[in-house]
Amino acid sequence: MKGLVYGGDGRRSWMEVPDAEVRDARDAVIRVDAVTICGTDLHILQGDVPETAPGRVLGHEAVGTVVELGPAVSGLTVGDRVLASCISACGSCRFCRERAFGQCRSGGGWILGHTIDGVQSEYARIPFADLSTYRLPSRVSSENAVLLADILPTSYEVGVLNGRVRPGDTVVIVGAGPIGLAAVLTARLYSPAHIVVIDKAESRLQAAKNLGADVTLTPERVPLGAIRALTGGLGADVVMEAVGTPQTFELCTDLVRPGGTVANIGVHGKPVTLHLEELWIRNVTITTGLVDTYSTPRLLDMLVAGQLDVTPLITHRFGLDEMERAYDVFADPARTGALKVMLTR
Amino acid sequence: MKGLVYGGDGRRSWMEVPDAEVRDARDAVIRVDAVTICGTDLHILQGDVPETAPGRVLGHEAVGTVVELGPAVSGLTVGDRVLASCISACGSCRFCRERAFGQCRSGGGWILGHTIDGVQSEYARIPFADLSTYRLPSRVSSENAVLLADILPTSYEVGVLNGRVRPGDTVVIVGAGPIGLAAVLTARLYSPAHIVVIDKAESRLQAAKNLGADVTLTPERVPLGAIRALTGGLGADVVMEAVGTPQTFELCTDLVRPGGTVANIGVHGKPVTLHLEELWIRNVTITTGLVDTYSTPRLLDMLVAGQLDVTPLITHRFGLDEMERAYDVFADPARTGALKVMLTR
Repeated sequence: MKGLVYGGDGRRSWMEVPDAEVRDARDAVIRVDAVTICGTDLHILQGDVPETAPGRVLGHEAVGTVVELGPAVSGLTVGDRVLASCISACGSCRFCRERAFGQCRSGGGWILGHTIDGVQSEYARIPFADLSTYRLPSRVSSENAVLLADILPTSYEVGVLNGRVRPGDTVVIVGAGPIGLAAVLTARLYSPAHIVVIDKAESRLQAAKNLGADVTLTPERVPLGAIRALTGGLGADVVMEAVGTPQTFELCTDLVRPGGTVANIGVHGKPVTLHLEELWIRNVTITTGLVDTYSTPRLLDMLVAGQLDVTPLITHRFGLDEMERAYDVFADPARTGALKVMLTR
Repeated sequence: MKGLVYGGDGRRSWMEVPDAEVRDARDAVIRVDAVTICGTDLHILQGDVPETAPGRVLGHEAVGTVVELGPAVSGLTVGDRVLASCISACGSCRFCRERAFGQCRSGGGWILGHTIDGVQSEYARIPFADLSTYRLPSRVSSENAVLLADILPTSYEVGVLNGRVRPGDTVVIVGAGPIGLAAVLTARLYSPAHIVVIDKAESRLQAAKNLGADVTLTPERVPLGAIRALTGGLGADVVMEAVGTPQTFELCTDLVRPGGTVANIGVHGKPVTLHLEELWIRNVTITTGLVDTYSTPRLLDMLVAGQLDVTPLITHRFGLDEMERAYDVFADPARTGALKVMLTR
């Protein structure tokens, strides 16, 4: 079969790899029907995720059809159409029992396309299949469901829920890539008064407006003044970091009000400066997190009920064997306007 | 009257100052019966709190007797013995209504000995007296009550409650000054499995043991290995920073487990490095805070009920006019072993 292999030092290629197969009694093998590329894959290529070794098949967001099952998988049947989530979970360790599946201590967590081969391939092995997959209702398209493999639950859990967005809040989202835009979509579920999105790219700010942001700013437009004007001088109730650089993180701590929350969603490769000399007195909460995916069943319900229109997030479509071209398009959003690129059979 | 005046640039002197008087209808004037010195006063002397101007009478922790009342004070009588809290509160602004009294937007918050004259003086003006003071039950000594003006509610709210200490937790407290020791005392209320205290000074570690810490370490004793050994390799559930330096803050983020909380209590004068390149994936929460004192009535109840033995925190006693000597002793704990110094009439 073919898969997208990380070659180290920025390199990647769509090439022949060993066939996916059941190795553990709890594994499933899926035929990949729809798959996408994540900003985290670009972080891996840049060397920000050192535990991912060259030779690894990347990818952690897919929908597929079950083709083979280990004998200990009890909830799936060959032929089922399933969402393969970015988080695998043993279900029985201490952290899984506390619903912190992303921190699974028994071989789960974010492993696909990270510490084991991922799903940017024709077939893929999914460990702990009972907990790591979700059978899809027929009314949900495979394309849309792929967006629930990572970006929707990540933005919702790590941004909106960790940030404790409440009705009437002023919410600032720094970064309007797919994660930031999914944060706009899911923050709206809590009826904030304002959703302010900050990004360099006008095309992404336009996408943010289309999804429900009411104020959009470029970093040059003095966000602090704008946020103060919106909030009677106080600052934002919740600020989400969805870029992953020291500059954008520091912007977040500048914009938050006393008693507010900075929810970091971005993948960081460098330390940041935390201005505790100003923040120690301000009752600020800062959260970090890898998604746990405890919200995925509920998000699927909301997708079925029509509460989440994720289709504007998909900007480009490719065949599975056009993987390298899809990477080229996704890695250069300033030129291509790409948000999520979708690859299907 | 006499008061302890900040002279700028490390200087302080006990000198004649204008008499305290009622200036606003909600003011009380108290005769100061017992007062202490806070680590924050030393931070002011070091220049870490630039908004405190030279000429200011310092001090924000006292018990006194009401000698004069403005016409709008409804809950106090001349002659009442009251705790004068470090936090003054208007009671009606948005933040006060949300019980965030420390962030009061109408002239309250931490103002005593900060932006207005404080309580290290023979008499003191207490704004918003109805909300900023607490009438003391006769069974509580003035000395012990002074410890509820700042350090007990600060350690409890900003350390234990922000840190969300739960039964069975491993709690690490970095810094065994009065704030760190008050954190030991109040963390015990939630029955953690282990309280680990880290400090350079053996005398302070001994005090921590006496108050209920079961493990004490100096920074040289490789705290990371000790904490991992205690927690099956995971790290501490809650880590409290009670020093206020970049090194001690970074030690806290090293010691916390995935999904754990770092509660900053220390007063910081410099930025710190936050290792988001490691923390982004670990579901860590970092909190900062100035005390709000919403817990003070409950802490007074616990003092009356005998649940909190604060007396070991008081190591030195002075007359009020020995203020400068008390500062000398408090500012050199390595030599004097001072924790809280108490000055009474």
